[in-house]
Amino acid sequence: MARQQRAIRTRRVFLEAAAEVFDEHGYDAATIAAILERAGLTRGALYFHFTSKEELARGVLQEAVTAEGLVPQAFKLQEWVDIALLLAYRLPREPMLSASIRLSVDPRARSLFGTRWPDWIELGAQILTEAKARGELLPHVDPQVTSRLFVGAWTGVQLIAESMAEPPDLVCEISSLFELFLPNNAVPGVLSRLDTSPHRAERLLKESREAVAS
Amino acid sequence: MARQQRAIRTRRVFLEAAAEVFDEHGYDAATIAAILERAGLTRGALYFHFTSKEELARGVLQEAVTAEGLVPQAFKLQEWVDIALLLAYRLPREPMLSASIRLSVDPRARSLFGTRWPDWIELGAQILTEAKARGELLPHVDPQVTSRLFVGAWTGVQLIAESMAEPPDLVCEISSLFELFLPNNAVPGVLSRLDTSPHRAERLLKESREAVAS
Repeated sequence: MARQQRAIRTRRVFLEAAAEVFDEHGYDAATIAAILERAGLTRGALYFHFTSKEELARGVLQEAVTAEGLVPQAFKLQEWVDIALLLAYRLPREPMLSASIRLSVDPRARSLFGTRWPDWIELGAQILTEAKARGELLPHVDPQVTSRLFVGAWTGVQLIAESMAEPPDLVCEISSLFELFLPNNAVPGVLSRLDTSPHRAERLLKESREAVAS
Repeated sequence: MARQQRAIRTRRVFLEAAAEVFDEHGYDAATIAAILERAGLTRGALYFHFTSKEELARGVLQEAVTAEGLVPQAFKLQEWVDIALLLAYRLPREPMLSASIRLSVDPRARSLFGTRWPDWIELGAQILTEAKARGELLPHVDPQVTSRLFVGAWTGVQLIAESMAEPPDLVCEISSLFELFLPNNAVPGVLSRLDTSPHRAERLLKESREAVAS
């Protein structure tokens, strides 16, 4: 393995270890020692990539806005749906994503690092603006407001799902959320052709990962 | 003032002081000393009412499910709307309510005390079930699912609003959220007669407080 490739992989191992520890214990209670133990690498290797716990947290948050699995669709609104379903499918499976939510809802970590919510809102607003230009949205829809409310709704639905003794499947919850959000946003001809089924995310992600691997 | 009335008032002063300190610093960083200082009362008085910080947190959470300001309406759906608007109006003004959200989103406090989300979901589901029996809801609506998604959406919209550099007005945000939620829940004849205006909450609360005072 070339030296540069090895460095990228090592950096990734530390970020994933940090994400797991932040996700399990929260930012304040997370220690460098616990992150090192989780990564199974040396302190020297860590400090080559990250100078502090703060920098690790920033690194985790940088990975948090992702549209992996998304492929262009006939309707922009379908892409908006797909990003949210993909994230709902991946979040319980990828500590990097759940850690970034935990860091965002923790007021102390939030005051240090901010959140990625503005980026999610911006991404959604861009897609919805394009959808509107193509005539997919009802005339009254404000892409910025709808995107902000949806990012909020998505986050809260996730938070409450994970707090329950028997958590409902997050992809099913987000799929149901779209049944509430879409009728007052999409024009009828588009609405009836959008696929919000919970199984969609797993299939999209599998296809995109197979395409990368081949 | 009768002794019992004074005891109720003292207990309330401690709960409000604790709520302010939890809200500002989080559960872990909150100290009994800071709560005493905020309350301006003695340690003896505190321990007469509460034996620990834990008990204060439980007391704060007990105050969190409130329908103050709600009055019976022609449509049950209007009552569902009113509870959510009233809470959105009161939350930024009452530390007891914002503290209970902060305690709920903090995973450590949550593991100690649970959350009041199940109670909010149950309250909403009861109202929606009654609305359905009266023919106000579309046939496909499941009161439990709609209530759960709405409590999640409300919570996340609040969380993201408060994290913004220039927070949007929470009552306006929740009012907009209803514009998204209601069309796929209410039958058309009811939908057009529901009042989701942001000004409604302030008026309802004022009227109900005047009625109590007189």
